Amino acid sequence: MFDCAIIGSGPAGLAATVFAIRKGIDVRLVTGKLGGKTSLSVNFPDMDDYVVLKAKEQVQVYRAQVEYLSHILREGYLERIEDRGNSFLLTLRNGDQLESRYLIATTGTRASALDIPGESQFFGKALGSSAISYSHMLRDRNVCIVGNSDRAIDAAVECSSQAARVCLVLEPHASYSHTALALANEREEITTLNGYSLVSIDGDEWARSLTIRRGDATTGSNREKTLEAEAFFIEREPRPNSDLLAELVRRDDRGAIIVDTQGRSSHPRIFAAGDVASTGMEQILIALGDGTRAALSVYRELTRRDPN
Amino acid sequence: MFDCAIIGSGPAGLAATVFAIRKGIDVRLVTGKLGGKTSLSVNFPDMDDYVVLKAKEQVQVYRAQVEYLSHILREGYLERIEDRGNSFLLTLRNGDQLESRYLIATTGTRASALDIPGESQFFGKALGSSAISYSHMLRDRNVCIVGNSDRAIDAAVECSSQAARVCLVLEPHASYSHTALALANEREEITTLNGYSLVSIDGDEWARSLTIRRGDATTGSNREKTLEAEAFFIEREPRPNSDLLAELVRRDDRGAIIVDTQGRSSHPRIFAAGDVASTGMEQILIALGDGTRAALSVYRELTRRDPN
Repeated sequence: MFDCAIIGSGPAGLAATVFAIRKGIDVRLVTGKLGGKTSLSVNFPDMDDYVVLKAKEQVQVYRAQVEYLSHILREGYLERIEDRGNSFLLTLRNGDQLESRYLIATTGTRASALDIPGESQFFGKALGSSAISYSHMLRDRNVCIVGNSDRAIDAAVECSSQAARVCLVLEPHASYSHTALALANEREEITTLNGYSLVSIDGDEWARSLTIRRGDATTGSNREKTLEAEAFFIEREPRPNSDLLAELVRRDDRGAIIVDTQGRSSHPRIFAAGDVASTGMEQILIALGDGTRAALSVYRELTRRDPN
Repeated sequence: MFDCAIIGSGPAGLAATVFAIRKGIDVRLVTGKLGGKTSLSVNFPDMDDYVVLKAKEQVQVYRAQVEYLSHILREGYLERIEDRGNSFLLTLRNGDQLESRYLIATTGTRASALDIPGESQFFGKALGSSAISYSHMLRDRNVCIVGNSDRAIDAAVECSSQAARVCLVLEPHASYSHTALALANEREEITTLNGYSLVSIDGDEWARSLTIRRGDATTGSNREKTLEAEAFFIEREPRPNSDLLAELVRRDDRGAIIVDTQGRSSHPRIFAAGDVASTGMEQILIALGDGTRAALSVYRELTRRDPN
């Protein structure tokens, strides 16, 4: 039996693993693909990504340490987590099993797909999700933000203080608050297009344009528009990868694992960090810090003076 | 009036400042000396500080950004904080004042001085505080840890899983739990010397030895020992620099500002991050993450939809 299993290897999982090793915890990192969402980060044509790179470099340092200590790595997709009272039994899709006393969930979130032509081709190439992670890089740029909730509107407002122009596309049946939209309407940098469906994303080596369409109920006709921009963001609510823990921990409305200031969930032997946790904020630096904290919290538990 | 004043410029304060700027918050950083405790970090003879350096490099990146945006910097020691209901009035020792709606406290902690010869000469040169921040660098080394509470005992236990030998010196009138000491006694790498006062620290370009003394009540004589080691740590409880906020926020037993998962104190317009906060763990990475979070929390407040 191991002291601690860490599931997921984005920034939170990598930091948790490295600090667990430092503290002498007998740890295993269970992950489908090393690196998590940082492998999906977005580049833009002619943009300075100095600061983003710095955080990514730090992630790379931790990743290299984990790869070096390869015995702690268990590559494979997790299928089932069973609480045995004093330990968890983890079963991987390939049938491998491992038993661990504590669990740190750092499984992140997944983006909702648009399912339109060009999406997979251009993802990462001026097309991404989580505009707020990049807003500081968008000074004087033309930005296009697509979504169906307050998340897209908030992102547009935030980007509008840096960007030259923001085109906000709200999809049909979008559900948003009128106060959020009123705030967006106050910003003269923002143009809002309401009730448009997405048709396709086009470009060269970068995403360059988004085609959208709106049906007209009266005439039965369709109106199509092609929007050009230097950065495109899909702002649908990302979904926390917490389903395997659904029976074990309390989750919030979004499905994020609710944690306290120590990173502990409602289960005394399960901690969470990064975007799968209720404290996640889609920032590498916060994920690194919270992953570190979760590992130190587990260390404290393991060396607690009164284990009864 | 500014949106937000950040007081203190260690890792938490620098990260908070940089992210506040990124979010377009009109922020001012009030600090006596840029850099905080990271300016005090410890080096050891012939030791690999690669990983520590990585975190320090990241701090350096943020520091450079703050220095570049020098208009946001207010250098000077803070003397008084007055809550005016909708804002805070900050008065510096030099008489300068500034008014700010929100406040992020990142003022860190201060170490208790030993007041013995050699302390100031050797601090940072194989002599430091916070052994747990360095334990992973101490593999196969001889370490000497001095203190008067469980903090020193816990540090000795943690270091003993890496170090070759740990000499734990408990000062006279130390107050500690017997269960903590029992755990230390189980580790054969740890030698405990109880009831010794510190006399001096000696060395060359590095601290090399610590002289301690114990009085014998029966004979009236003194017994002196000189301990050699490659790393010396003073583990007295550090004190959070929170006195200026004593009337405004709730603090814990140690004087740390109690914060929630968003970094918010008991005062709705005061946030805290880093080691001055109850969530601090003496880790640069956690301080960077929590500083970032505090800035994003203030951003959320400032753009809240229902400001009534």
